[in-house]
Amino acid sequence: MPIVTLLSDFGLQDGYVACMKGVILGIAPEVDLVDVSHLIAPQDVRSAGFVLFTAYRYFPPGTVHLAVVDPGVGTERKAIAVRTESGFFVGPDNGIFSLVLKNEAGFEARNLENADFQLRPLSSTFHGRDLFAPAAAHIARGASFDLLGPETAPMIAQWSSPVRGKSGIEGEIIHIDRFGNCITNVTLQEIAKVHLASAWRVKAGQGPELPLYDTYSRVQPGNALALAGSSGFVEIAVNRGNAALNLGLRIGTAVYFLLERA
Amino acid sequence: MPIVTLLSDFGLQDGYVACMKGVILGIAPEVDLVDVSHLIAPQDVRSAGFVLFTAYRYFPPGTVHLAVVDPGVGTERKAIAVRTESGFFVGPDNGIFSLVLKNEAGFEARNLENADFQLRPLSSTFHGRDLFAPAAAHIARGASFDLLGPETAPMIAQWSSPVRGKSGIEGEIIHIDRFGNCITNVTLQEIAKVHLASAWRVKAGQGPELPLYDTYSRVQPGNALALAGSSGFVEIAVNRGNAALNLGLRIGTAVYFLLERA
Amino acid sequence: MPIVTLLSDFGLQDGYVACMKGVILGIAPEVDLVDVSHLIAPQDVRSAGFVLFTAYRYFPPGTVHLAVVDPGVGTERKAIAVRTESGFFVGPDNGIFSLVLKNEAGFEARNLENADFQLRPLSSTFHGRDLFAPAAAHIARGASFDLLGPETAPMIAQWSSPVRGKSGIEGEIIHIDRFGNCITNVTLQEIAKVHLASAWRVKAGQGPELPLYDTYSRVQPGNALALAGSSGFVEIAVNRGNAALNLGLRIGTAVYFLLERA
Repeated sequence: MPIVTLLSDFGLQDGYVACMKGVILGIAPEVDLVDVSHLIAPQDVRSAGFVLFTAYRYFPPGTVHLAVVDPGVGTERKAIAVRTESGFFVGPDNGIFSLVLKNEAGFEARNLENADFQLRPLSSTFHGRDLFAPAAAHIARGASFDLLGPETAPMIAQWSSPVRGKSGIEGEIIHIDRFGNCITNVTLQEIAKVHLASAWRVKAGQGPELPLYDTYSRVQPGNALALAGSSGFVEIAVNRGNAALNLGLRIGTAVYFLLERA
Repeated sequence: MPIVTLLSDFGLQDGYVACMKGVILGIAPEVDLVDVSHLIAPQDVRSAGFVLFTAYRYFPPGTVHLAVVDPGVGTERKAIAVRTESGFFVGPDNGIFSLVLKNEAGFEARNLENADFQLRPLSSTFHGRDLFAPAAAHIARGASFDLLGPETAPMIAQWSSPVRGKSGIEGEIIHIDRFGNCITNVTLQEIAKVHLASAWRVKAGQGPELPLYDTYSRVQPGNALALAGSSGFVEIAVNRGNAALNLGLRIGTAVYFLLERA
Repeated sequence: MPIVTLLSDFGLQDGYVACMKGVILGIAPEVDLVDVSHLIAPQDVRSAGFVLFTAYRYFPPGTVHLAVVDPGVGTERKAIAVRTESGFFVGPDNGIFSLVLKNEAGFEARNLENADFQLRPLSSTFHGRDLFAPAAAHIARGASFDLLGPETAPMIAQWSSPVRGKSGIEGEIIHIDRFGNCITNVTLQEIAKVHLASAWRVKAGQGPELPLYDTYSRVQPGNALALAGSSGFVEIAVNRGNAALNLGLRIGTAVYFLLERA
């Protein structure tokens, strides 16, 4: 009984997610469907990639992860499936799997060109239903990975790799969680390679320089700080507050990690 | 392992949906439960009917679709189950299945009067839990359709049939999706019976006359247009914008399809 | 095939809920997962306790109910599992199960101290994933209840018991539903012990005294009243309106039940 997880920006008020589930259950009735999230900010590939990264490691090996945040649908962007030791990843080739693939020991990817694994007619606007859901279902049923299409090299997006410069590291906000915490694309591990955490100051957008602490309680309620979340990525937070609202931060806002002068 | 889908306006912050699922799993432990949506605008039967229509065709034959948007609960409105070649539809007899039934080759309906298929005591306010969920579960388990109650003729709502007049077609908005696109009750097919799509202008509420195009990109970002969505129904949209907000449209707003004078 | 239900304040836009589900399915692949709600107001134990109370009675005996609203995570608060005739309840020992346990004939509770039933490393911030989800999964698989840890007495929270005084009963609002109805911690049953329902006036916060009726339609649209909802608890409502918004009520607002002078 394999698991298929679903991640999208389709929202929960329309029938789009149910269409995908109906298609999957029609092909592979025995699978377990698990929603990761369908409330990704519309077309935000970074946020989708981060949310998938936080969740996929907790699923059993062989799980099929379907991720459809697809601003390029109808254009020339490729549709891919990727196989790793952790499982399968099915979605548009727009960098959505960047954080996952950088975290895996190795991977193999295929272009989803085999029309036998697609609905007919293939719409130009809803590949989640017509192309990605059937591919995920066939993989879950045990279809040979090689049959999906020719080998390909998946896109690893620039936003998944912060830039290291003379004065520090430049990253960006890639996700905002329910509580307004703003997660950056910079891990504590990357920072620690350069210098001890306590030596850094973090500046998000036009905001003030913030300390990098290990727990909320190092600052007074209402005050902002940077800290490493349970995912390992550094986030901008406000103790008992909403950092996104209080500091005016958005997905894509630049975040600078600066070394204090000694 | 039959599938039971669930659609309602109960929202996701309370325990109402879980009550229905508990009841269903108590009667039919082997079913697969799939949510269609529980964020239908409160008491909006039109929107529920449209969302169900977009999703049901993608489920395997025999699927049981439970749809509870029920402003008439506690009144004399009937409770029904309908059987078609696609599956079963269980809910209040208020027109919620209109679009589905107009799309099916035939159907047979029953009044849900058999008390053996209801919880006791039957509340006057929560038939989703006490009446519709048990009926759906018993159908999924294979209960004889004839046992549910006497035959009946389900309501086909007026809003499911736009009015054709001298100067064109008068419809209305029946659903607003996550992106603010406003779906009308008029299909491209109905329009094409009268005249080529390119000959029409579409006027929603007090708004300006809009062109009817086949793709968003025919207008500049920020501009409004009408186009046929993946469901086949014409919708009012704004390229990269939110039509409902920008044009002040709501469910129920009248939409006029006018033939340009030659 | 046991059922595991999930209730939390994690929201639906992040990957937190999916992490818990992945952990559960890794340990107990055969369980049925059912969401109760993940949109509990952040850290509101009262609201979570009420929503669980409304739903759990409709699930089959033996169901495992996982409830993670956990403002005390990382502190000394205990983690518990409780067994009753209705099923199992797993979560923080912060009173979240108060209404359930007051409604059950008896119960037995264990401190979740057995490290064999926890993920390693155990984070200090996400016990839902690392501690509660594995415990729920092991219970669903049939692990011996005694193995979970030593016996304990679960906290029954003060808010679950309104105070009876000379002039009446003092309660508070413990949940606000999708429609803005404000549910109190006072049942119609408790009131009836003192005096007939018709003799009471209800005052929520700084608002006016309201009548206690049996149906919305006893007041004009737009007017407020108190009435007993389907859960048995008295709620403050506005006929066709939103009581929370109209009357400025919040979870925790005091509600006074006053006996009219004869």
